Amino acid sequence: MSQRIDALKELMRRQGVGALLVIHPANRFYLSGFELHDGQCNESSGCLLLRTDGPDWLLTDARFTVEAWRHWPEEHVHVYGSPRVEKIAEFVKSLGVRELWVETHAMCAETYLELGKSLELRAAPRLVEELRTVKDEGELAALRVSCALNHRVYAALEAALAPGMTERDVAWMLERLFREGGAEALSFAPIVGFGPNGALPHATPGDARLQPETPVLIDMGGRLGGYCSDQTRTWWIGERPSDEFRRTLDLVREAQGLAIARVAPGVSTDELHAVAKEYFARHGEAEHFTHSLGHGIGLETHEAPGVGPFRPTILRPGMVITVEPGLYYPSWGGVRWEHMVVVTEDGHEVL
Amino acid sequence: MSQRIDALKELMRRQGVGALLVIHPANRFYLSGFELHDGQCNESSGCLLLRTDGPDWLLTDARFTVEAWRHWPEEHVHVYGSPRVEKIAEFVKSLGVRELWVETHAMCAETYLELGKSLELRAAPRLVEELRTVKDEGELAALRVSCALNHRVYAALEAALAPGMTERDVAWMLERLFREGGAEALSFAPIVGFGPNGALPHATPGDARLQPETPVLIDMGGRLGGYCSDQTRTWWIGERPSDEFRRTLDLVREAQGLAIARVAPGVSTDELHAVAKEYFARHGEAEHFTHSLGHGIGLETHEAPGVGPFRPTILRPGMVITVEPGLYYPSWGGVRWEHMVVVTEDGHEVL
Repeated sequence: MSQRIDALKELMRRQGVGALLVIHPANRFYLSGFELHDGQCNESSGCLLLRTDGPDWLLTDARFTVEAWRHWPEEHVHVYGSPRVEKIAEFVKSLGVRELWVETHAMCAETYLELGKSLELRAAPRLVEELRTVKDEGELAALRVSCALNHRVYAALEAALAPGMTERDVAWMLERLFREGGAEALSFAPIVGFGPNGALPHATPGDARLQPETPVLIDMGGRLGGYCSDQTRTWWIGERPSDEFRRTLDLVREAQGLAIARVAPGVSTDELHAVAKEYFARHGEAEHFTHSLGHGIGLETHEAPGVGPFRPTILRPGMVITVEPGLYYPSWGGVRWEHMVVVTEDGHEVL
Repeated sequence: MSQRIDALKELMRRQGVGALLVIHPANRFYLSGFELHDGQCNESSGCLLLRTDGPDWLLTDARFTVEAWRHWPEEHVHVYGSPRVEKIAEFVKSLGVRELWVETHAMCAETYLELGKSLELRAAPRLVEELRTVKDEGELAALRVSCALNHRVYAALEAALAPGMTERDVAWMLERLFREGGAEALSFAPIVGFGPNGALPHATPGDARLQPETPVLIDMGGRLGGYCSDQTRTWWIGERPSDEFRRTLDLVREAQGLAIARVAPGVSTDELHAVAKEYFARHGEAEHFTHSLGHGIGLETHEAPGVGPFRPTILRPGMVITVEPGLYYPSWGGVRWEHMVVVTEDGHEVL
């Protein structure tokens, strides 16, 4: 953790950020090990106050005092009372901080307006998110273990899927497999789409029953040791896959292979997207690839860098991204295949 | 839904709110039936634009178009592109809206600052939350069904708890029971505390194994048909409950009974809290009752009205609150007992 804080301080100095309030749960956890989650979007477990000229503080309320001491020097844990935001502002001011940089993407406007009454606020660049894009060895190990469980769940599902099951049955089966395999939780609401439902970008598992000779699209992930997995598979259930399914699956797997082959340090994420898009275009299917090629993954399922046509990022060793091309046809369904890929010193490793 | 929107318009007119942007997921769902959840705190499924002089719009992105049409007149569904916030601002302006009231407690500061570049923003009072405090017949029916499942899960747990199980085992068992009983999800991370862990206000179920002759505190809830349940029980596992456990349980149940007996229209929530607090004070235990007596419950586990010493609300028929006094002793554990209580026309009903 102290290496991470040192790296953050270096970024802060370079960008002229003197005092940064970290409230984003994954950022807070990344820097301190304290509480990866907040209870609800509008409830906070606490925040970190990081200063280029130190000392750094962990601020929380009385519910979390003991937990805070486990992760932060006790003399720099501040327990605030109520009303929360007013008390935080008072404390920050008492340290002599006047200009406070805040994570406007993670802080609600009400809190921002209240803090702004007594402090000069500035919108901070996403410094911790930037650090988090490059995983250290411990994080890579955790992601390997997490993705290995994802593979085991798919193996069990593939053996168990049978006509008559509903999408909801499958969703609950996979959740049980993740949880009984040690996951703390699913990392996102799983997609289980039978037939045409596989073409819906946002398919909630429903009461549709699996018919023989049907494509099934499953997109799922778990959180294990804090780190998320995310993979998609599309299977034909039956013995006689349709020609269009076979062709689409071949196109998607080929596009995925071409994109993954390009993953290496120095490559730009928009190039990866373009590889898949252009391959589909050559086969007249570009319009059926309707989303980005992938995204970074770690403490959050969706994190930087995005892997799409916009806002390119140059890949660096230690980054972990998903590569998940897909083609969708409302009449019969969709095919998507997704792997998690680590950028290594000299290329890549598929998890 | 149209009755709810009419009631909201009435509140808007009375408070001079001409145009309100509803982004809070539970508020959006309450008024439209569209998407009770957002993917992550920083991801939005869409928002409603409500105007005293209409028409009202549902704004979303292309992933949700079909789902939006199921819940809102198609001619008033607006599908925005990217970048999201800029596109929303453009659309709102194109309708002639200049002054926009927003839910600052549910909107991130980044969105607020971006919208504020082209619109005059005002922080809206919590109008939809206020409406949501009083449940209609359909909501009460859903809460009854949801709480009935909670009772069934406790019955099954009580029969199954045995020495040797870990807190984590119990947490997963209760989650399975909720899900297999039809719940969409747990409505909050459950608390399972063996012995002294029952005194921790924020106990994450861990690897502690249940010993014979131990108190066990369980606080749990599920979401069924969109509506949350929330109950707490404290049991002695074994045949020889300690004297202090017996006495504490008696005090807590008695305080709960006294507070519930007072639940009726016209009563103020702070009076309910005071009934429990004063009863504990008479027995010299007031300092061990460390939290509020309860909270409103519905589409969210924690919603208005709060039931504590501050910010009193006058109870009205149709409100649903929890009544959950507790006493905590770090040396041996805690006792809390929680019921969900409906305010009826002439008193109350315990679910």
